[in-house]
Amino acid sequence: MYAAMWYAPQDIRWEQRPDPRIELPTDAVVRIVAACVCGSDLWTWRGARPPADPHPIGHEFVGVVEEIGPGVTTLSAGDFVIGPFSISDGTCVNCRRGITTSCLHGQWWGRPDPDGRMIDGAQGQYVRVPYADGTLFRTPGTPDKSLIPALLTLSDVMSTGHHAAVSGGAGPGRTVVVVGDGAVGLCAVLASVRLGADRIIACSSHTDRQNLATRFGATDIVSERGDDGAAAVRDLLADQGADTVLECVGTDVSMAQALASVRPGGRIGFVGVPLGGAELPIRRLFDDNITVGGGVAPVRPYLPELLPDVLEGRLDPGPVFDLELPMAQVVDAYRAMDERRSIKTLLWP
Amino acid sequence: MYAAMWYAPQDIRWEQRPDPRIELPTDAVVRIVAACVCGSDLWTWRGARPPADPHPIGHEFVGVVEEIGPGVTTLSAGDFVIGPFSISDGTCVNCRRGITTSCLHGQWWGRPDPDGRMIDGAQGQYVRVPYADGTLFRTPGTPDKSLIPALLTLSDVMSTGHHAAVSGGAGPGRTVVVVGDGAVGLCAVLASVRLGADRIIACSSHTDRQNLATRFGATDIVSERGDDGAAAVRDLLADQGADTVLECVGTDVSMAQALASVRPGGRIGFVGVPLGGAELPIRRLFDDNITVGGGVAPVRPYLPELLPDVLEGRLDPGPVFDLELPMAQVVDAYRAMDERRSIKTLLWP
Repeated sequence: MYAAMWYAPQDIRWEQRPDPRIELPTDAVVRIVAACVCGSDLWTWRGARPPADPHPIGHEFVGVVEEIGPGVTTLSAGDFVIGPFSISDGTCVNCRRGITTSCLHGQWWGRPDPDGRMIDGAQGQYVRVPYADGTLFRTPGTPDKSLIPALLTLSDVMSTGHHAAVSGGAGPGRTVVVVGDGAVGLCAVLASVRLGADRIIACSSHTDRQNLATRFGATDIVSERGDDGAAAVRDLLADQGADTVLECVGTDVSMAQALASVRPGGRIGFVGVPLGGAELPIRRLFDDNITVGGGVAPVRPYLPELLPDVLEGRLDPGPVFDLELPMAQVVDAYRAMDERRSIKTLLWP
Repeated sequence: MYAAMWYAPQDIRWEQRPDPRIELPTDAVVRIVAACVCGSDLWTWRGARPPADPHPIGHEFVGVVEEIGPGVTTLSAGDFVIGPFSISDGTCVNCRRGITTSCLHGQWWGRPDPDGRMIDGAQGQYVRVPYADGTLFRTPGTPDKSLIPALLTLSDVMSTGHHAAVSGGAGPGRTVVVVGDGAVGLCAVLASVRLGADRIIACSSHTDRQNLATRFGATDIVSERGDDGAAAVRDLLADQGADTVLECVGTDVSMAQALASVRPGGRIGFVGVPLGGAELPIRRLFDDNITVGGGVAPVRPYLPELLPDVLEGRLDPGPVFDLELPMAQVVDAYRAMDERRSIKTLLWP
């Protein structure tokens, strides 16, 4: 098969790789129907993470089960599945509690498993899926192609935006500020609408993203960044800050903006992978009773709740994809997102 | 009147002070019926806080209203009242949301108000109470003397323990670890029992405090501290950590122990005034989806919920007082607590 391999910053190659096969009884092999590039992949593209050996890349996909191992009990060849960005056994104590991202046997796409087997990346034609029962989520029947973009967002960005909104307590009677206008931030707007938030302030300085945020249900737009952005939020609210702030970036600046935007007693839901050096200022949290929750989104347990809304047309995050390319042009997808020409790029095999 | 004045570390004096009088329309003057020394006062006694001018000290009291200003509408002379450790107007946006500790006109006992008037401390015979309607909470009738210790805990330690438990999500089906065996930690055990937690592990290396924790409803005791304490908790649970950890100390070591004791997806309720230099490790919170909430306890809004339980005998935090002294011996109270001869010392006028 062909798949994307990361070799070095700005050096990702679409190249031939071994065809995946069942290696463990709980494996499945999935043919990718659609994949995409994540904002977090961009950090790898840019070299913001520690150097590593070449590795497959990509962690968001929908696809069709081609083959299952003898230990797989809930899936069959031909099933259409959503692939969460983390691999989980579905049976350990953390999985049973819904924190599949802390699975005791958890693995990650594009990294070696505990025995040294490299796990495939999702930007490719096929993947071997460890712990297929615990990881994959089957849709009822094969969905219409028009639903593929929306379904693909469930593998990461929509579920992550939902996790931010849940962690931040978005809901009726609450004002929400979303810091971050990437796909996750935009999905956090949708998630806040879905959870019934009264007022949703999206922070974005890009017209196309502002427009999409508004289309998704944001009631207000703040285009300033950092302290100015927080000041604009407080001006807008004529108040002590927002009940809920969703931090969907992961930089020190964005977290500082979140902290400066939340009211005393408010909540920050954070899902941006923390890449800055700043820790959370405990005295600030203490003095104003600010709660911080969130983290790496446990996608799998959210799917039974989110999937029906997508299938029945009540939730459509599909428009976060504003560019579609053949997977062989994966490098163009990285470039388009890195240069902010695309919010999120969908890849067809 | 006589009252306690802090002059320097280990130099607190019981001395004559001006009799409080109504200075603003919203003031009340309260005769202290009982007061006490707080763990946070000990930091001042020890000099762990920045040097300051001499100031009155003490922020926990119950008493009787002697006189009210013309703007006080909900209290009358003769009312028995509980005095929360923070002064709040009860009408600003933060007070209306229940975060009275972030009151826009908030003031603190023993510190000057915005116009430079020194606010009395509670370790004295009388106090002038600013924003009396918003600050004080009246009991129905005059309580029996036997209830005074329990009622006095509502001004701080019991309400703070409750805040920890609420912030940490203590409740049915959840295992709670309490880090800290001071009066707040012990009250956090009581609060967790009251909220229906299934299993409550108290961390204490002192037999008298272990015994009181057990009497209050702790199901297990861990006597090791720091990393060893966290390891003991995990051994005890044979699990990934506790659902809820209540941090009731405020040092770097105690917060580290809390972080090491909580399970993925768990919650830390923290109420110890942060006195160390360590900030909260954002990547650790992110990776394991740990929520941190709490802060300086908004006592006043909790009193309508907690007071009936005390008055009707369902909640008795009174035993946290294991020493009672005449207020003129306030310095002996500080010494007894500083040397850990007393968990908490009650002062009678």
